[in-house]
Amino acid sequence: MSTAAIAARYALAQSIARQAGLQALEWFRKRDQLVIESKGLQDMVSAADKDTELYIRAQVLARFADDGFLGEEGGLDHADADYLWVIDPIDGTACFVNGMHAWCLSIAVTYQGKPVIGVVYDPNSDEMFHACAGQGAYVNQQAMRAHSASSITEGVLGVGFSHRVPVSSFVPFLDRVLSNGGMFIRNGSGALMLSYVAAGRLIGYYEPHINSWDCLAAIVLVQEAGGTVNDFLANNGLHDGNPIIAAGAQLYAPLLALIQPT
Amino acid sequence: MSTAAIAARYALAQSIARQAGLQALEWFRKRDQLVIESKGLQDMVSAADKDTELYIRAQVLARFADDGFLGEEGGLDHADADYLWVIDPIDGTACFVNGMHAWCLSIAVTYQGKPVIGVVYDPNSDEMFHACAGQGAYVNQQAMRAHSASSITEGVLGVGFSHRVPVSSFVPFLDRVLSNGGMFIRNGSGALMLSYVAAGRLIGYYEPHINSWDCLAAIVLVQEAGGTVNDFLANNGLHDGNPIIAAGAQLYAPLLALIQPT
Repeated sequence: MSTAAIAARYALAQSIARQAGLQALEWFRKRDQLVIESKGLQDMVSAADKDTELYIRAQVLARFADDGFLGEEGGLDHADADYLWVIDPIDGTACFVNGMHAWCLSIAVTYQGKPVIGVVYDPNSDEMFHACAGQGAYVNQQAMRAHSASSITEGVLGVGFSHRVPVSSFVPFLDRVLSNGGMFIRNGSGALMLSYVAAGRLIGYYEPHINSWDCLAAIVLVQEAGGTVNDFLANNGLHDGNPIIAAGAQLYAPLLALIQPT
Repeated sequence: MSTAAIAARYALAQSIARQAGLQALEWFRKRDQLVIESKGLQDMVSAADKDTELYIRAQVLARFADDGFLGEEGGLDHADADYLWVIDPIDGTACFVNGMHAWCLSIAVTYQGKPVIGVVYDPNSDEMFHACAGQGAYVNQQAMRAHSASSITEGVLGVGFSHRVPVSSFVPFLDRVLSNGGMFIRNGSGALMLSYVAAGRLIGYYEPHINSWDCLAAIVLVQEAGGTVNDFLANNGLHDGNPIIAAGAQLYAPLLALIQPT
């Protein structure tokens, strides 16, 4: 693994995220007009998602033609490459499509299967969350640290849920969080809430099933911010997804106990 | 009730919300520095809350010295006045204090006990949600309509919860929402999520207990946007709070059935 090769991709990931994010923000702001032109909300957001992913893919391959690419929309190319880009063009499409601000772009790069670069860009707030293995985590130019909480009552927890898994994988957990005096948000974007864990804005995050393109960038953020994350890539997590558990280092065990009570 | 008297207060409410909101945004952006100066997060947000309420109160009383005023921080003045201002200086303080963007200012005016003006301002997105009885509802200059959904599966529901009420008043409801194929957000600000119901971004909102200063402005927004809201002011709701149920007109009954199953 070459330091220069990583650094070049780290810079490119941020540059692409910003450019693609500002384009997506134009789509978002012209939402009403685009919905009419594209014959409906769902077609509009699909078009915005696909166009953003195609733009990111083209920018990556123009610079690193042999790198692999895994996108939510377009699937996997060059699976055997050393460097694999794992991206979600718009994370939080339900927010995007309905005119709410909690959506973002997520770009991760793995080297020989290990996540080494994480970039999450929130165009509405112009916040670039970024990290590279061994170099710390930042929001714009400010260093991030995960929260120091050791109890669920010391801050706000992020949660996620999708209908890919049964309701019973989520509701009893939330019941335990609240019954133990905790509080939660679900803003609609897993990548953004995980970035907030890295920034110490949320004390932790749990979702019973998440896809790799939604969380891989933010996993690097949380780890570089001193937080703890489960072994997400175990058991083919890259392609099939997995549960995600992320928290400040002191809260990881108490959070795990609420997820898997003895 | 004089049209001119209402119109003057409607204009003033928007003007104050914007000025106070931009001041609160300065607090928010200097959060790290202010936390150190004020000896802690909780002191800082309390100071921001109180200062913002004092500013709003002074601006109102400078123009309408005989109007009543009910604020989250400072309690009730001139309870017997025809016009009563009901305000929350910062709704979503957990977001504000932790550096997340979902917070807003809420200013309502009642005339002889009936809510007639609602203004919710989100400084982070520069969105002014505003309505006056009989004049429609707007976000900035754009007219708002509540969502046309008739099923919980047609969009996203907003939910709220606080530890003022038992966990059992919330979790079984959320279980029914998800088990019926619905999806939810809780972004941390009830006033903002209720404004999103007026804007058709959320299909509805439920919280088992909310205070009047958190919801009275948004109730005017939802009603003027064609949505339906429960009789929040019943049984001394102004002072003691109540459950809040708000939705597009077609979804109100289906949502109520999920809250109070037969």
